[in-house]
Amino acid sequence: MSFTIPKTQHACVFDKNGGPIVYKVIPVPTPKPSEILIHVLYSGVCHTDLHAWRGDWPLATKLPLVGGHEGAGVVVAKGSEVKNFEIGDYAGIKWLNGSCMGCEFCMQGAEPNCAQADLSGYTHDGSFQQYATADAVQAAHISKDTKLDAVAPILCAGVTVYKALKTANLRPGQWVAISGAGGGLGTLGIEYAVAMGLRVLAIDGGEEKGALCKKLGAEVYVDFTKSKDIVKEIQDATNGGPHGVINVSVSEKAIDQSVEYVRTLGKVVLVGLPADSYVKSSVFMQVVKSVEILGSYVGNREDTAEALDFFERGLVHSPFKVVGLSQLPEVFKLMGEGKILGRYVLDTAK
Amino acid sequence: MSFTIPKTQHACVFDKNGGPIVYKVIPVPTPKPSEILIHVLYSGVCHTDLHAWRGDWPLATKLPLVGGHEGAGVVVAKGSEVKNFEIGDYAGIKWLNGSCMGCEFCMQGAEPNCAQADLSGYTHDGSFQQYATADAVQAAHISKDTKLDAVAPILCAGVTVYKALKTANLRPGQWVAISGAGGGLGTLGIEYAVAMGLRVLAIDGGEEKGALCKKLGAEVYVDFTKSKDIVKEIQDATNGGPHGVINVSVSEKAIDQSVEYVRTLGKVVLVGLPADSYVKSSVFMQVVKSVEILGSYVGNREDTAEALDFFERGLVHSPFKVVGLSQLPEVFKLMGEGKILGRYVLDTAK
Amino acid sequence: MSFTIPKTQHACVFDKNGGPIVYKVIPVPTPKPSEILIHVLYSGVCHTDLHAWRGDWPLATKLPLVGGHEGAGVVVAKGSEVKNFEIGDYAGIKWLNGSCMGCEFCMQGAEPNCAQADLSGYTHDGSFQQYATADAVQAAHISKDTKLDAVAPILCAGVTVYKALKTANLRPGQWVAISGAGGGLGTLGIEYAVAMGLRVLAIDGGEEKGALCKKLGAEVYVDFTKSKDIVKEIQDATNGGPHGVINVSVSEKAIDQSVEYVRTLGKVVLVGLPADSYVKSSVFMQVVKSVEILGSYVGNREDTAEALDFFERGLVHSPFKVVGLSQLPEVFKLMGEGKILGRYVLDTAK
Amino acid sequence: MSFTIPKTQHACVFDKNGGPIVYKVIPVPTPKPSEILIHVLYSGVCHTDLHAWRGDWPLATKLPLVGGHEGAGVVVAKGSEVKNFEIGDYAGIKWLNGSCMGCEFCMQGAEPNCAQADLSGYTHDGSFQQYATADAVQAAHISKDTKLDAVAPILCAGVTVYKALKTANLRPGQWVAISGAGGGLGTLGIEYAVAMGLRVLAIDGGEEKGALCKKLGAEVYVDFTKSKDIVKEIQDATNGGPHGVINVSVSEKAIDQSVEYVRTLGKVVLVGLPADSYVKSSVFMQVVKSVEILGSYVGNREDTAEALDFFERGLVHSPFKVVGLSQLPEVFKLMGEGKILGRYVLDTAK
Repeated sequence: MSFTIPKTQHACVFDKNGGPIVYKVIPVPTPKPSEILIHVLYSGVCHTDLHAWRGDWPLATKLPLVGGHEGAGVVVAKGSEVKNFEIGDYAGIKWLNGSCMGCEFCMQGAEPNCAQADLSGYTHDGSFQQYATADAVQAAHISKDTKLDAVAPILCAGVTVYKALKTANLRPGQWVAISGAGGGLGTLGIEYAVAMGLRVLAIDGGEEKGALCKKLGAEVYVDFTKSKDIVKEIQDATNGGPHGVINVSVSEKAIDQSVEYVRTLGKVVLVGLPADSYVKSSVFMQVVKSVEILGSYVGNREDTAEALDFFERGLVHSPFKVVGLSQLPEVFKLMGEGKILGRYVLDTAK
Repeated sequence: MSFTIPKTQHACVFDKNGGPIVYKVIPVPTPKPSEILIHVLYSGVCHTDLHAWRGDWPLATKLPLVGGHEGAGVVVAKGSEVKNFEIGDYAGIKWLNGSCMGCEFCMQGAEPNCAQADLSGYTHDGSFQQYATADAVQAAHISKDTKLDAVAPILCAGVTVYKALKTANLRPGQWVAISGAGGGLGTLGIEYAVAMGLRVLAIDGGEEKGALCKKLGAEVYVDFTKSKDIVKEIQDATNGGPHGVINVSVSEKAIDQSVEYVRTLGKVVLVGLPADSYVKSSVFMQVVKSVEILGSYVGNREDTAEALDFFERGLVHSPFKVVGLSQLPEVFKLMGEGKILGRYVLDTAK
Repeated sequence: MSFTIPKTQHACVFDKNGGPIVYKVIPVPTPKPSEILIHVLYSGVCHTDLHAWRGDWPLATKLPLVGGHEGAGVVVAKGSEVKNFEIGDYAGIKWLNGSCMGCEFCMQGAEPNCAQADLSGYTHDGSFQQYATADAVQAAHISKDTKLDAVAPILCAGVTVYKALKTANLRPGQWVAISGAGGGLGTLGIEYAVAMGLRVLAIDGGEEKGALCKKLGAEVYVDFTKSKDIVKEIQDATNGGPHGVINVSVSEKAIDQSVEYVRTLGKVVLVGLPADSYVKSSVFMQVVKSVEILGSYVGNREDTAEALDFFERGLVHSPFKVVGLSQLPEVFKLMGEGKILGRYVLDTAK
Repeated sequence: MSFTIPKTQHACVFDKNGGPIVYKVIPVPTPKPSEILIHVLYSGVCHTDLHAWRGDWPLATKLPLVGGHEGAGVVVAKGSEVKNFEIGDYAGIKWLNGSCMGCEFCMQGAEPNCAQADLSGYTHDGSFQQYATADAVQAAHISKDTKLDAVAPILCAGVTVYKALKTANLRPGQWVAISGAGGGLGTLGIEYAVAMGLRVLAIDGGEEKGALCKKLGAEVYVDFTKSKDIVKEIQDATNGGPHGVINVSVSEKAIDQSVEYVRTLGKVVLVGLPADSYVKSSVFMQVVKSVEILGSYVGNREDTAEALDFFERGLVHSPFKVVGLSQLPEVFKLMGEGKILGRYVLDTAK
């Protein structure tokens, strides 16, 4: 199989953080010997993309930058050293574009923790363009009969919440609470948890979110806007507290409560990234209850493959809305205003 | 083998928390069907005993109370249901006297977390007497050629720090930092860590403690009274930070620092019990570094057997000073004043 | 709550191995201080009961003996030391009646491996009677709204196959092959595996069994009576071989094949007990494929509680047929002839 | 730093399996973009090299072939994609030269199990030459002050036995038996085990080997040439059997015995590769004792780094004898005759 690769393409580019995002024609990049060139058909939009554009995180972005790290497409070219992709394969671009593969973290499969981590849409031009390069080792394999628009959000949101569930290391039949269950990460979390044989208690605010959570498989829904004693309510509903908690909510208060209501010997997983927030835990209680507080970052290659497999088997879905790549500025605007439910997916042909 | 058991014995008793501790003659208790009667020859004195006497913890003690939970002696009688001790065996009394053995925590070997936990020297008369009853399932087996005065402090201090090291779950060759390394728990921690193949970085204040830590096997000593940047100093000495940290220090500041200097993917273990203290961790940093903060309570039956085995093989020592049981009030006074180095062990014959 | 306990009861007793099984009136036993007395309403019949009667295993039974180790009933009395049962609770009798709770195996929760293990219906009168004593620590807790006839087979068959699945230590989404999937243990295994998020490949002979396996949730059925190359067929169906294999079949050939078709890095679990059989594995292949061969015995207290929880949540069923306790000899006869499908459950009132 | 790289070099080459090994001048190879070029100063000689030359394993070698997979030297050039080595670094060539890094096995760090595994001195020209190419991701990092002749045998023998010990997954204080303890892998195994806090029981034949094993740290030596009941002797010496067994011996009988004498719940590790040999285990015994039989192949990147770290810290040694590269045929001759004690290391300058 071979593809005709154009010299130029459409992309969304900004020259300085917070500056205008311009939809324009730029050259198609050339893959290095260890890279593949992916014809990106669809790309999800993630909160992190908004941070990259704003430049409000401690780590500097490359400039000018093409953002995006949830890209799904087709391999149209590959470098001489690539052993694990063929032209025509479906491939995904994810947050970690590449790493050194030789440091202590890479050696144990914790490539996202590599000091030389190269990040899609942050330090490496990402998926808000029609043709993007990706390190072949890190790029995700997507099965041939997968819908590329639907799978895009799995590449970051899905993998991240799946990794958090793996970090909690629960066994089938145990209770997991998902704090912030009604949002994009949360709803995916419910579906992954159910597919892993866990019992889900969903926490969020409002009846609409409650109905959604229950529909996706949560056994119990706790509405924090109505609960008089959320700790007690959660512990009662789970016969002593959930064995694990996934904090996708970025509320500091919600995180602190999770340390309280978690079951004795339970695990509190931190995965959302609230700015300038701290988790606070009573040393006495944490010791006597033998509780674990665990930071979970993005998934590695194996986590990605597993998260995709659940999706491809139809066990996980993510509501999404497709708009054209050129509409990225509008999507950022809605996102900044907190007006997005589910995920926006960009069609790079438009 | 059989023993003549007297009707009465000497014990240290108090009638109300904070009231006078009276050295007097009381009846020898009778073991229940599931208990052994131990002729306690020596008992260590632990900070927890001071709390039990003062009654300043949230959980009420029985009253009147015979304190003590580091007792070493000989089995002189046993109940009808006891299957795992013979008369004449050496046995140890530890913090957890007994539990229900049927709840979810007992079922997974986490008996100290049992809601029905019966605590020696707290809710059950302990080792500050010559004859004490102990639940046979939880009582520690001590090998016949073990010195009973030396082994006493292992039954709580040794087991607790060994359990904390197990909780860190490091592999031989990795770095462990012990914060508060020069104290009673800390020095035992150094020896256990070395016996487990770990590399030890000891943290404490003063040259004398530094010399002691190094003598016991610490590769590096960091003096917090002299360090200008303790986080940097520890990370430099360990090529990126220790893989695990055991916080036996009860300083809130020291605990918070440990979350900072621990290696990426590292584990911070909480084991000391500072009153009203909190561990505070930046959510962003804990997620990105994928750090674990783990509460470690006292050891279970297996931890106890393992901790004793290291001691009996001569790999662990604990400096101690023997005084008579009747001198307990003086020991408490010194302890309250923070004037104790190493462990006091009471000879119940005096 | 209190119960009137009769002095005598009906039971099935034999005086010598292989001798007549007599349905007769015997005294109701008295619980020891650490025991409960269970009014057994239903008892499953297991192949092991047949071995106990025949006396063809290396370990001698008590004589005369009341067999049975899948008993479900109500607690009607308890000894003075029992902390974890109340009169009126539902309780189950399982293979391991009691153990020393103090040896190295008991300490790590491996009570079935205790050298002092007391076995229901083997070294301790079991559940083929109306009132049986059981060690309170080991007796199973059964929820109040559980059907006692249906739950009986879970107490041995269910727990054993669940434990085998835990031993395989697979993660949700991985493939497990169940060899002998159409039998009593096998069908339970399919349901447990599905509830644990695993993908099931079932192996057995005949179309009827195939239909049953698929109905219970197996994705793939391999009929060994028709397969021309069973290793290849299984590896093709699972894209490289199952990650784990549960051998409930007692065919030596089937076990040896499982070592061949298991995936690289996979786990072969032995759980059935064919007499005088050996598993044979090529050292070269086992090393290069890094395969694990794991023996899995009966479950412990925690495994039992978990296995029961899946049942009580309605995720696991076991086809069974109820007959009177007095009909045990006929059941043994059918069992000896290999004519039993599913499980026989005895109603002790008849 | 930069090096002058010659156009030609000395190497040992054979054109067909079993044919003459010719010491001659060949071109220096050019590294691919993902490779480093190592100036090999020393190379160990392993039994596997003999198999590669003979061609008696199921997998075909490349031809003509430069053998060798325990090479230690200096990085003198690197491809454009190499991120984890600098010119002048010390580097090691090991059995696994490279893999696809994208398959399910590579993703979980089991690169040696990759179907595209490229093997040094087997499918890729190895370390029996002065300049060899190596995949940068897989090449071993060696610290600057390491003696390159002494470290060479660690790169295969050391890593392999260390990996086997990790596979046994024992905790410090437990017993490990090493079967074949007096040979090259065995003596390394004793030292690694001791450094990991394990208690070692060494098994081999003859007093000389016994003295060596004890000197290296074995607590117990069992001489199979003198033992009347080796199973009983080993179980008595370890109070019930070792918790783990490392089978570096290639005797089928010794392997089968290890399944018998291993402790209940113990692990038998297969690591030696006897041709056409089988391990045979009684299903009944393996189930009732809950024994694990585990295949352990060569180590991965992390295992290699850890094994080297123990060596570099002076905890592990390997007796070796240095001869010139040109003497490889004589070394193979001695090896084929079973006349080698310890390891031969080739000096590529001679």
